Order: sequence, then C-alpha cells, then structure tokens
Amino acid sequence: MNNIQHKVGAPPGTLVYSGEQRSEKVKITLIEYNENEFIEKDFYDFEECEKLLNQGMVRWINVDGIHDVALIDKIGKHFNIHPLTLEDIVHPNQRAKFEDYDNYVVSIMKMITLDSNEIHSEQLAVILMDGIVISFQEVEGGDAFDFIRDRLRQGKGRIRKMGADYLAYALIDAVVDFYFTILEKFGDKIEVLEDDLMNEPTKESLHQLHDMKREMIFVRKAVWPMREMINNMQRSESDLIKPATDVYLRDVHDHTIRVIDTVETYRDLLSGMMDIYLSSVSNKMNEVMKVLTIITTLFVPVTFIVGVYGMNFEFMPELHSKWGYPLTWLVMLAIIISLLFYFKRKKWL
Amino acid sequence: MNNIQHKVGAPPGTLVYSGEQRSEKVKITLIEYNENEFIEKDFYDFEECEKLLNQGMVRWINVDGIHDVALIDKIGKHFNIHPLTLEDIVHPNQRAKFEDYDNYVVSIMKMITLDSNEIHSEQLAVILMDGIVISFQEVEGGDAFDFIRDRLRQGKGRIRKMGADYLAYALIDAVVDFYFTILEKFGDKIEVLEDDLMNEPTKESLHQLHDMKREMIFVRKAVWPMREMINNMQRSESDLIKPATDVYLRDVHDHTIRVIDTVETYRDLLSGMMDIYLSSVSNKMNEVMKVLTIITTLFVPVTFIVGVYGMNFEFMPELHSKWGYPLTWLVMLAIIISLLFYFKRKKWL
Amino acid sequence: MNNIQHKVGAPPGTLVYSGEQRSEKVKITLIEYNENEFIEKDFYDFEECEKLLNQGMVRWINVDGIHDVALIDKIGKHFNIHPLTLEDIVHPNQRAKFEDYDNYVVSIMKMITLDSNEIHSEQLAVILMDGIVISFQEVEGGDAFDFIRDRLRQGKGRIRKMGADYLAYALIDAVVDFYFTILEKFGDKIEVLEDDLMNEPTKESLHQLHDMKREMIFVRKAVWPMREMINNMQRSESDLIKPATDVYLRDVHDHTIRVIDTVETYRDLLSGMMDIYLSSVSNKMNEVMKVLTIITTLFVPVTFIVGVYGMNFEFMPELHSKWGYPLTWLVMLAIIISLLFYFKRKKWL
Amino acid sequence: MNNIQHKVGAPPGTLVYSGEQRSEKVKITLIEYNENEFIEKDFYDFEECEKLLNQGMVRWINVDGIHDVALIDKIGKHFNIHPLTLEDIVHPNQRAKFEDYDNYVVSIMKMITLDSNEIHSEQLAVILMDGIVISFQEVEGGDAFDFIRDRLRQGKGRIRKMGADYLAYALIDAVVDFYFTILEKFGDKIEVLEDDLMNEPTKESLHQLHDMKREMIFVRKAVWPMREMINNMQRSESDLIKPATDVYLRDVHDHTIRVIDTVETYRDLLSGMMDIYLSSVSNKMNEVMKVLTIITTLFVPVTFIVGVYGMNFEFMPELHSKWGYPLTWLVMLAIIISLLFYFKRKKWL
Amino acid sequence: MNNIQHKVGAPPGTLVYSGEQRSEKVKITLIEYNENEFIEKDFYDFEECEKLLNQGMVRWINVDGIHDVALIDKIGKHFNIHPLTLEDIVHPNQRAKFEDYDNYVVSIMKMITLDSNEIHSEQLAVILMDGIVISFQEVEGGDAFDFIRDRLRQGKGRIRKMGADYLAYALIDAVVDFYFTILEKFGDKIEVLEDDLMNEPTKESLHQLHDMKREMIFVRKAVWPMREMINNMQRSESDLIKPATDVYLRDVHDHTIRVIDTVETYRDLLSGMMDIYLSSVSNKMNEVMKVLTIITTLFVPVTFIVGVYGMNFEFMPELHSKWGYPLTWLVMLAIIISLLFYFKRKKWL
Repeated sequence: MNNIQHKVGAPPGTLVYSGEQRSEKVKITLIEYNENEFIEKDFYDFEECEKLLNQGMVRWINVDGIHDVALIDKIGKHFNIHPLTLEDIVHPNQRAKFEDYDNYVVSIMKMITLDSNEIHSEQLAVILMDGIVISFQEVEGGDAFDFIRDRLRQGKGRIRKMGADYLAYALIDAVVDFYFTILEKFGDKIEVLEDDLMNEPTKESLHQLHDMKREMIFVRKAVWPMREMINNMQRSESDLIKPATDVYLRDVHDHTIRVIDTVETYRDLLSGMMDIYLSSVSNKMNEVMKVLTIITTLFVPVTFIVGVYGMNFEFMPELHSKWGYPLTWLVMLAIIISLLFYFKRKKWL
Repeated sequence: MNNIQHKVGAPPGTLVYSGEQRSEKVKITLIEYNENEFIEKDFYDFEECEKLLNQGMVRWINVDGIHDVALIDKIGKHFNIHPLTLEDIVHPNQRAKFEDYDNYVVSIMKMITLDSNEIHSEQLAVILMDGIVISFQEVEGGDAFDFIRDRLRQGKGRIRKMGADYLAYALIDAVVDFYFTILEKFGDKIEVLEDDLMNEPTKESLHQLHDMKREMIFVRKAVWPMREMINNMQRSESDLIKPATDVYLRDVHDHTIRVIDTVETYRDLLSGMMDIYLSSVSNKMNEVMKVLTIITTLFVPVTFIVGVYGMNFEFMPELHSKWGYPLTWLVMLAIIISLLFYFKRKKWL
Repeated sequence: MNNIQHKVGAPPGTLVYSGEQRSEKVKITLIEYNENEFIEKDFYDFEECEKLLNQGMVRWINVDGIHDVALIDKIGKHFNIHPLTLEDIVHPNQRAKFEDYDNYVVSIMKMITLDSNEIHSEQLAVILMDGIVISFQEVEGGDAFDFIRDRLRQGKGRIRKMGADYLAYALIDAVVDFYFTILEKFGDKIEVLEDDLMNEPTKESLHQLHDMKREMIFVRKAVWPMREMINNMQRSESDLIKPATDVYLRDVHDHTIRVIDTVETYRDLLSGMMDIYLSSVSNKMNEVMKVLTIITTLFVPVTFIVGVYGMNFEFMPELHSKWGYPLTWLVMLAIIISLLFYFKRKKWL
Repeated sequence: MNNIQHKVGAPPGTLVYSGEQRSEKVKITLIEYNENEFIEKDFYDFEECEKLLNQGMVRWINVDGIHDVALIDKIGKHFNIHPLTLEDIVHPNQRAKFEDYDNYVVSIMKMITLDSNEIHSEQLAVILMDGIVISFQEVEGGDAFDFIRDRLRQGKGRIRKMGADYLAYALIDAVVDFYFTILEKFGDKIEVLEDDLMNEPTKESLHQLHDMKREMIFVRKAVWPMREMINNMQRSESDLIKPATDVYLRDVHDHTIRVIDTVETYRDLLSGMMDIYLSSVSNKMNEVMKVLTIITTLFVPVTFIVGVYGMNFEFMPELHSKWGYPLTWLVMLAIIISLLFYFKRKKWL
Repeated sequence: MNNIQHKVGAPPGTLVYSGEQRSEKVKITLIEYNENEFIEKDFYDFEECEKLLNQGMVRWINVDGIHDVALIDKIGKHFNIHPLTLEDIVHPNQRAKFEDYDNYVVSIMKMITLDSNEIHSEQLAVILMDGIVISFQEVEGGDAFDFIRDRLRQGKGRIRKMGADYLAYALIDAVVDFYFTILEKFGDKIEVLEDDLMNEPTKESLHQLHDMKREMIFVRKAVWPMREMINNMQRSESDLIKPATDVYLRDVHDHTIRVIDTVETYRDLLSGMMDIYLSSVSNKMNEVMKVLTIITTLFVPVTFIVGVYGMNFEFMPELHSKWGYPLTWLVMLAIIISLLFYFKRKKWL
C-alpha cells in the first residue's frame, strides 16, 4: 500500500529520494564491450568510473541503489540528463514510461520479484545514450540481469556484436521474461488454492484468495503501462534506436501483451473462485440445515406422543390397556420410518 | 495453467523448445501441386525433402512436431527465416500474430481440439513465401487439414488453381472452422448443464460449470488475438498476398468475429447459470427451513400442553375431570388445524 | 443454441446449405415497377422468371427459402455473384454485414419474429445490383415486407418514383422496424414479470427471467452487427447507392442505434430483476426464520417449567401448595407476555 | 416502458403521429425580436402566423404539441423541411441527434420533468434556419423556456443582440440546465433512501431503490446521446451556426458531460446501496439466528434434565434424596450461567 | 451530494455565485517577481491591487474566495476575460477543463483536502495571461500553495528564473501532488479497515466501507477530467505556454495518470472488501447454525428417551427392573458420544 509515496510540495526538479530508508553504499558496475573486448569493474565512486569510459565500446553503467541522490546528481550532470528524469529515477513509484530527450531516451519500468512467496516490485530505469546504457535499480537484485552479464562475458549469441540499443532492449526483455517466471509460480498457487476451495473451504483459503487477488491488482498496475512504454519506444523517432532493433522491440511488445493476457486470465480465474467459495459455504450451510431439520422432524412428533402418555389425567383408558405401551412404540416407529421415506424421496438423505 | 512456460533468461534469438517433453520423430510432409500435377511424400529428414522442391509448383511443407529444434534450425537456415520467427515457432505459447518479413510472412495461431471432453490447444505456425507454405504443428493432429489434403489430391474446387497464398488462407480457414465444431459441442454441453442446474443443482454440476467457465476463458484468450492477426494479414502490404485472396481473408475475418461472438455469448450464458445455481440452492434452503418451521410450530405448542398435564401438582382440578383428557385432545387438534390453515394462507404448504 | 452450425472443412466457396432440414418448394416472387407500371408474379423455377426481367424497370426478385442450393447457384451464375456471397446466403448463421463487389453490393442481416411467445431469428440477404434487388429469406415469413408490397401495388408514397437502392433501403428499414414491434411486446412481458417478482417470487418466474435474459443475449448478438453493416453501407463508395438515399440510410442507422439502446436498457432492467428476486427470496427466508424463532422462544422456556413440575422428586414443596398450579400458570403467562413485548420492540411482530 | 412505440411498416416519410393520444388544440407562439423591437403572439392556425413573419427580425416559432400532423405538414412545406425531419418530429421517441440539411439544421433531444416525484421525458425538436428558430414540444410545459421568454421581453443580457443561432443554443442550454434541477432533487432522494437502508431496511425501500435505479437507466438513455448531438453541432460546417456561438456550444457541451458524470455517479451510488440492503438483511437474519440459538442452547439441556427426573423408574435413588430437587436446580442454573459466559465470550450477547 | 448545484435558467453569461453561502471578505494576494526582485502584498480591494502591477515582472494574483461576484467581474473586465470563463469561476462545481482564448488560457480543476477524516473538494481556476497568473480558490486553504510561495520568497530552485507559464504549471502540479498526500492517508485507512473486516466484521466497518467507496467515487469524478485537461493544455497551440514548459506538463500528466491508477486500485480493493465482509458474515452464520444443530441433535433424541420412561402406562416392564435407570443412562451416553464422533468426522467440532 506504500506505493504512492511522493514528495509533496517539492518543487519539480529538486532531487529528493522518496523510497524506503536505506543506508548501504551504492555500487556502480561498469561493463564495456565490443565484439572483441570485454571489461567489467565495480565502483563505489562515480569519479573513478568516469575515467574508465572508453569511447569506442558499448558502455553499460549499472547503479544498484537510488537512495544516494548526490551520486545520481553527479551522474546526471556528467551525462547531461534532464532534472525531471533524475527526479523520476529517485522516486521509486513511477508508472512505466518511455521518454525521448535530445541526447538520450529513458525507459522506466517495474520489475517484480517473488520474496518468501509474496510478490514485490522494484523500479528500473534504463537510459540509452550514444554507445552508453545506464541502468538504475532500487536494490541489488540482479537475478534477471545475471544471464545477460554471462552472455556478455562469454561473448555468446549476437549481443556482443550489437550496439547499445540492443543492450537496452535485452535489459527490458529480461524484465518482461521475469514476469513469466513469477506468473508461472503464481499459476501453480492458483491451482492448489482452487482444489482447496473446492474440497475444504476454510477461512484461511479465503484469506489467501484475497491476498492473491490483491497481488494481481498490483501486478496489473505494474504491467499495463509497460505495453504503452514499449509502444512509445517502437514509435520513437530517436536516432539512438537503430532500425535493426525494431524487430526485437516488436517481440518484447508481444511478450508484454502475453503477460497482460495472463494477468487478466488469472484475475478472471480468481474472481470465479470467490463464487466457488461462496457456493461451497452455502452448500455446507444447507447440509447443516438438513441435519437439523431431519433430527427435529424425526423426534419432535414422537416426543409429543410420549408427552401425551406422561399426562396425569385420571381417566386415560390407554394407560390401563396391556397393549398401550407396545402399540405406542409401534406407532412411533411407523412415524419415524415414514418420515425417513419422505426424506429419501426428497433426496435429503 | 501450463501455458505461460517461457524460456527465462535465454537470450533473444536462441532456439530452445519450451513445450511439453516429447521424443517422437518429427515427420515432414511435402505436398507439391499445380493445376495439373500433384506430388505427396513423407520424410523424417529435411535434407531429402530439400532436394525434391520443384520450382514451378506450389510447395506445402508440413512439419508435425516442433521439439526437434535442430530440424527447425535447418529449415530456418534453408529458407532464410529470421531467428525470432524460429523462436516463436518452438515456443508453443505464443499469442496469435501475423508478421511481415522481407522474404516471407508468418501467421501464428492456436488450434483447439476436444480430447476426452476437454478442450486442448495446440500452436500452428504458417509461413508463406514465394510459392511455398511451411506449416509447423505441435503434434500430428491434422484432422483439420485432412480435408484440405483430400481436395488437393482430388483436384476439386478452386484450390489447385490458386497460389500459395490461397493455401495459407485455406489452412487458417480450416483452423477457424474447427473452432465452430468444438463450440457447437460445447453449446450442447451448456444446454445439458443448464437443465441440470435448473432441476437438480448438485456440487458436481457446480464443478462442471466452473470447468466450463475456465475453458471459455482459455478459448477466449486463444481466439481474440486471431482477429487482430487476420486484420494485420488483410492490411499487409506484402506482395506475397495477392489481391484476389483479399476477399477470402475478409471471409475468414468474419468467421473469426463470429467465433468471438459465440464465445462471448457462452460466457454470458455461463455467468447467468451461476445465478441460477445460487438461487436454486437458496430456494432449496428455503424449502428446508419451511419444513423445519412447520414441524416446530405444529408440535411445540401441543407438547407444552401435554407437559402441563404431566405436572405433579396435587391440586390440578382438570386432572380429575372425566372430560379432561378428551378435551385436551380437542384443544390440541384445534391448535394444529388452525396452524395448518395459517400456513396455507401464508402459502407455505 | 443451434446457431453456430457451420460447414466444417468444406472448401471455401462450395455451396452447401447448413440450416434446418426443409423440403418445401422454394418460391420466387418477381415484382417489376416504375412510376407508371407494376408487374407481380410468382415462380417455382428461375428459368421462367429470368425471361420476364424487364430492362427499364426496377426488378425485385424475392426468394423464399435458401435450402435449394441448385436454384441459388443458378441465380448466382445468372447475375454473376461471387461464390463467397452465395455461400453466405445459404449458411443461415451469418453475422450482419455489408459487402461491396464490383457489380453489386450485398447486405446480410437477421430478422427477428415472435413465435408462440419466443423470439426466433431468420436470415435475410439483400443483393442490390443496377436496377435489381434480390432478397433471400430463410422461410416464407414476409409480414415485414407485406407493407412494402402493398405500397408498391398502390403506388402510394415515394417508393415507385425511386430506384432499386431505395427499395433495398426500404427492405432493411422494414427489418429494423420489426425489431421495435417485437421489443415492445417484450417490454410488456418485462413489466408483468417485474410485478410477479416483486409480489410473489416463484421458481417459474425465475425460470422466465432467465429465458428472457437469454433471449436478450441473442437479440443483442443479432442487432449489434447491424449497426456496423449500415455504417459500412453509408460509407460505401459504390455507385449503386445514390446520394439521395444517404439521408434514408442515416435514418435507418438512427433506428438501429435506438434498437440497440432498447436492448441494452432491457438487459439492465433484467439484471436488476435478478437482484429483486434474490432479495425477495431472502426476505421470505427471514420471515420464516422469525416465525420459527418466535415460536421456539415463546414455548421452550415454559415447556421447561412444566417439565420441572413433572419431576418425581419426593421433596418438592411447591407440588403440595394449593397455589402451585395457578401460580405456575401466572409465571408462564408473564414470561410469554414479556417475550411478546420484547419481539414487538424488536419489530419482529 | 412505452418508449419504443414506433410506426411499423409505415413507409419512410409518411407523417403519422405515434405518441400518446391527445386532442387539445395545438398552440403556436410566435416571438419576433431584434435589438430594438419585440413582438409576441399566440396562434392556433399556421396561416395567420405565416403572414406575420418579419424578414429583418429573429423569428421564434414555438409549437406546443406534435399530434396535429396536418399542421406540422403545413409548417414543413412552408419552410421546405425534409419529410424525414418532420417524421422525426412527430415520433416522440427519437434519440437525441443533430442533423445538417441544406437550408436548416435540426436538433432533437429529450427534456426531463419531475411530475409527482417521478421523472418524465418529453421530446423537443429545434430547427434553426436563416433568422428563424422553430421549436416543437410534445406538451405545453415550457417552464424551462419561460426564463428565456422573460429575458427576450425585457431585453436583458446579450440575447436580443445575438442571432437565431444564439436563441437555438439558449433553448438547448435551458434543457440541459433543467437536467441539473431534476438531478439535484434526485440526489436528495438518494440521501434519504441511503439513511433508510442503513437503519431500517424494508421491502418498501428496496422497492424505491429499484424504481430509482430504473429512472437513472432512463435518464442515462436520454442524456448520453445529447453529448454526441452537441458534438455534432459543434463540428457542423453549416453557415447557420456563427463562429461567435462556438464558445457557447463548448459551454453547453461541458454541462452535458457534467450531467452524464452525475448520472453515472448516482448509478454507482445506487448499486452500492443494493449491497447495503443485502448485508443489512443478512445482518438481521444473523441476529434472529442468534436469538434462536441462544434460547435453544440454554433450555434444551435443562429440559433434558427435568425430563430425566420425570421418568417413572422404580429404582431412582435421587428421587428419594432430600437434596435431589434443590441440587437439580443448582446444576441447571450452573449450566445456564456457564452457557451465558460462553456466549459472552463468543460475542453473541 | 450537493455538488450539482447550478444556476438554472440564468442566461448564459450572467454572473451569479452558486456555491455555499459565505460572507467573509475576499482576500487578494499579489506576488510579483523576477530573477532578482520579489514583492508580496495582500489586498481586499482590486483597485489598489491594480495600480501595483509591474509590467516587467511575473505577476501572480491569487483570489481567496469566489462569492464576491462584483470583484470577479471587476477583475474580469480589467483583464478582458470572457464572460463564460467568469461564470465558470463562480460556479464551484465545474468539471476540470482547459480552455484557450485569444488573450489567455484557463485551467479549472478540483483540489481535494482532508478535513476531520473526510475528503472535501474545492475548485481552483488558474488563468494564464502574458506575464500574469490569476488563481481563484473557493476558500482560503492554500496549504498546497504555501510551498510555492516559500520557494518564490527564497528564490530557490528554478521557479524565479522561469516565466508565468511555469508558475501556472507549478500550481497545477501542487494540486496533483496534494492528491497523493490525501490518497496515502486513505490507503492507510483501507489497510486498517481490511484487518477489521477480516477479523471482526461489524455494522460499523460496513458503514465505513460504504463511506470510503463513496469518497472514492467522488475523488474519481474529480480526477478523471484532470487528465484530459492537462492533455488539452499540452496540445494547446497558445503562445502563452512556452515549449520549455512542455516537459513539465508531460511530467504532471504522468502524475495525474498515477493518481487515477491509485484511485482505480483503491476502488478494486474496496469492492473486494465487500466480498470479504459478506463471506465473513456468512461464515459467522454458519458457525451459529452449527452450534444450534449440534445442541439440538445431541439433546433431542435423549429427551425423547426420558420422555418414553415418563409415560404412565401401567404395563411397562422396564420401569420395574432394577437396571432400567442406569441402563437408560448408558444408552443415552452412548447416543451422545456417537453423535459427537459423527460431528468430529464431519469437522463440525
């Protein structure tokens, strides 16, 4: 619920971090490569990193942490990034968006991760400049990007042969693919829950159903704007995105729509499960009611009869008959048996 | 639920099959024809197939199975197909789409089949090149295409006179028509279920209702993007699709919209049936309640009366009266009869 | 539910009738007119009809029945109609659509009729060529068109002065107007049902509600595409539709939107009625519960008291008191009266 | 529900009135004005009115009643109005629309009035010609227009200085403003109903809720097309609407959207109130159930105990003990008190 | 609910205040600044204010109160503002909108404030002219603007270096940011309520849920049109908005969409909570039912047995047996224990 934090009143363009409080040192990872060379180095200081930037190579600067606004500011000044972009980077509750500036384009999006069975989200900003990609992550998570780093190191596939725009695409594609991993696990949880609700609807499963619904609401909120972001990226007229990358953007666009489709399908399934829960509960109630009614209906009439012969009237001829007692039993049994037949016919038994 | 499998982290453009594990040999069927000639041959090896491709004829290469990525790769290289297209082919959970490349156009869609009363879906990719159609199916199902093969063999209708684009259209049309067959059977199931729910709502029918709702969710997910796919195909500026085929594409577009209409209608009907179920259950509950209430209301007052005369007070004049016992019976009968009248008037009986 | 019949596997362009089985002879009615002359004649054979077609007049060929595919084929060949159009005509489950061909335009739509209080639908195809209108109906129903025939015979109004496009418009307008007649009757049924549900909710009225909902689903499915059909007709660039007819098409377009509005309003009303039903049922249940609770609450405590004095303990002083019995009655009456007051205050009585 | 009356089968362009039967004489009011002069006169005959039309002034002809088709026809012929427009005027169930003809533009819309707490609607047609405005109302209601007449008489504001298009705008603006008056009263009714449902949900308030929902459905149906009507009017290229009037049309467009917003908000509120009603009813049921359960649970066990000592076994030692009776009372009190504690802890009391 | 007040019948362009009755004197605050100078002064009279307007500086005239129509009129005349704009300013229930006039542009929007835990809304109109910004607020609230005033005074940030269009943007941005503050507090309330409903669903929490739903309906109604307003502002071709401000407008547009997203998410969450409430209530009912049924089922059969031996038949052999009484107890205990086992197996206990 804390995803609407926002600096209120701060003048537009002032750099104030608005996410959770953090104190760890921010790590900068510089990767430089071309088809033949590959350099990788970690820094905790932008000045040192700055000196190492090689003109002729694709340079990927990954910043793990956005709470050190002074650092962000330094990077922003060095690369001539618009203050509003920097502001967006340090406010970790942006909507996914793509923006075109003169010297760079920026994509901001949400990554989701699964932590102790709950879905968390983290903001990622990817700035693409001429030959340079700068990525800003909220925390050092990186699983999604490990794979890309591996391929860069090993020089496999086409990634080392392509430019910075392909790297930016690869990062976004990794984020979208990660949604699938998470959603697949989520789908398994839905299946388990469904069986639970069908067979043994408890308050806990209702709880869980509600939590999953809420998680889907948040994933949905994160993923819908990504479609538009990639759309805008495809339509961008910036020279930074080469025509050869178009076909890859079209591909990641398709993946995003598939993620959205899956989220919507899960939402449909989850809301259908509320109906199942309610009808299971109402079925159980019905069953309880039937037991109550059968018991009452069987015993109340015969209890009346035994009450009759418990009366103390002086003149009750039946009481003095030898057959009174056994006949009463017979009558009561007859009543009970015919009631049982009646329930059988009504399909209550 | 397993339809969101996806290679996570795989670099875009690397060929990894991501569907169910399969081991059967992949069969390639080559059909070549023109107005006068017809050749049909099966292969388990693309090299052999390759040699037989006749320039002057329409060539249809049907591949039954997409788990042999090496084969797909070979075909892809031979026909110069973009790596992203090959990737889409071997990941059997694509959204329906149409894509335009320089030397070919590709349509990917879902076929549905009915297996032991459950709806399954399978991916079909149709590549249309100059004079060549290549189709990739997940499994050797083929019922939908048998009819086309028959007509090609017999040379009936206009199909042998038309080009490769007409063949591609015919394949897509067969897929769409197959949706109708499945949906018609589904419609019959809905009618049966509806009667069940009206007359005898059981937990099983609720179960079935839920399953059918879920099936419609998946069919819907499969069929909606087909509309857009055919739309894009109609609007394509590729030379591979001749103007003469336009009118047929318009026709298959209409059919797709009818499939969507039918799916939406079924969804409406199914969600109306949940209401019926709930109100049937609540009607039954009401009936049970009435029986309980009538029994209780009839016997509780008279049981009280017999209790009164079961008391052991020394001074109870009624007990010694000769008319005490029969009068008590009369009073009790009067109470029961007037209650029955009351229920009659309330329409509870 | 049988409205998704479709020839599966039939090659596109093969003429196979797919509606209900029929055997009656198909009647062709030829009407020819201009401002001064009027000719009307029935045929059961197209060859005879063919000879009578007068060049200078507006010719309306009405075909009552589409199950005689040989006849349809003959007509199609004579007027040079595209095979796909003929196919659409003989498959009586088309979506309403308008299509533009070189030598003709064709409108296909659904007419609805009310038969023994149920809504049925029938397909109508109207082909407009230069000076010729050909209409294909599933059955000889014609009420909707009788009026047009009368005006043609009598030469009243502007219809005899206008061309074939006006006639085509008049036919479509008659179909749309017929929707209003049906919907008006449907509206009356809704009002009656509403009163029933408010005052005496029975299982039968729930049944009826569900049937009406389903009927609206089908009418909706029939009428929505008509809007697009007329839209396309208005936007058509065919020379067959004269500019003077535009204003009439705009009018029929407005009528179609009004039909849609009415259908949507009825759907809203009907779904509101489900809520009424459920709350009526739950109100009744509540009432039953109250009776049960009141009876139980009144008699259970006093039955306990009489039970107490039915005990057989030797040492129970009350039993020997002269006032024991009347005092017990007083206490019990006091309990019952105070409970009645309590219920009164709770507004249960 | 009677708002779908429609002449079925009437040839388009034949003038037949289709509203409620009326017999009162139709009144024509002619107002002529320019900045300096003002003339107002009533007629029951168009011929007389016709003679008085002054070329140089703005002429407003208001017709109160549309059932006298002969009169409408006469006016139509005099001003050269298209037969379809006349038809729309005399069929009082049109959808709001704006149409552009060569010599005039026409706006048709619904006015709503509140009659004995129910919302009624009435059709208004406004024809704007060069210097002339002709308005047709179903009944002589006119409250909405009185204000305009007053301002014309008194020459206040800018209305006397502006042309006929401003007058047409002023009429439409008065209609839209009247919606606000009605909706405000409706809003008050909603607030009252809401309190009722919260505190004392009765069948009557449910009834009222349903009626209000239905009224909103009809208001919504009336008001939505007005937006489009005014939109079309704004976009009209007719010379009859001067550029200076554009800003006023933009204003009335905003008002219409606000009316729609309000209607949608009321619909949201009303459907939320159904939930309140249902949960109030279910809360009450719960309360009834609790009373029943508490009473039963308190008395059934102790009634069993007194039953035990009402048995007539010869050998029951307790019966002969001196302390049997008081001890039984103690046990029963203990049971009742501990049950009361249990209920207290369960928060049932 | 009182937000649809509207002057009915008032001729368009007549200045009548239509909000709540107020009598406090309207305060005018003039702030004039450029990069070097800053002047701030309060007035209660426009004439005095008028004299102080310095040509070369950015002038911000803030008017706290719109009920003094004479003052508004004076300001309107002085700055040549269109009567319709003035009218919009004094009717405090406008929809957010942006309008372009020759000499100025005007943005009207709703600010929301949180007063004693309830959301209130207030109208703000911002007129941007060449070098001048005039803002009209309903009441002297101003918290949202205090921050801007502070920055102007202190000359921090870029605001003093930018023109009047930046100031107008800053005001709108402050309004949008304030929505976040309110919504964050609202989100906390939702979390608290959610826990309440899960654990202890009371009538009060239902009440609160309904109130929050209604508040969201109103916030939604206020915020949706703001998106369009800012859109129109971005697309405006007025020279008053400099290209340099575009990027800031894009930013505020993003914020508005985020506000809308948050409102929609809250609506989703709140409607999910109704389901939780209903299922909690139905769970509780179920629990009550079970207690009732268990008690009844346990005691009714044994009460019948004790009734049997309370009968006064002369010939009942059991009564004279020494073991009759203890055996009866054993039988009754056996019945109760087996019933308890049965309930255990049914999971009712």
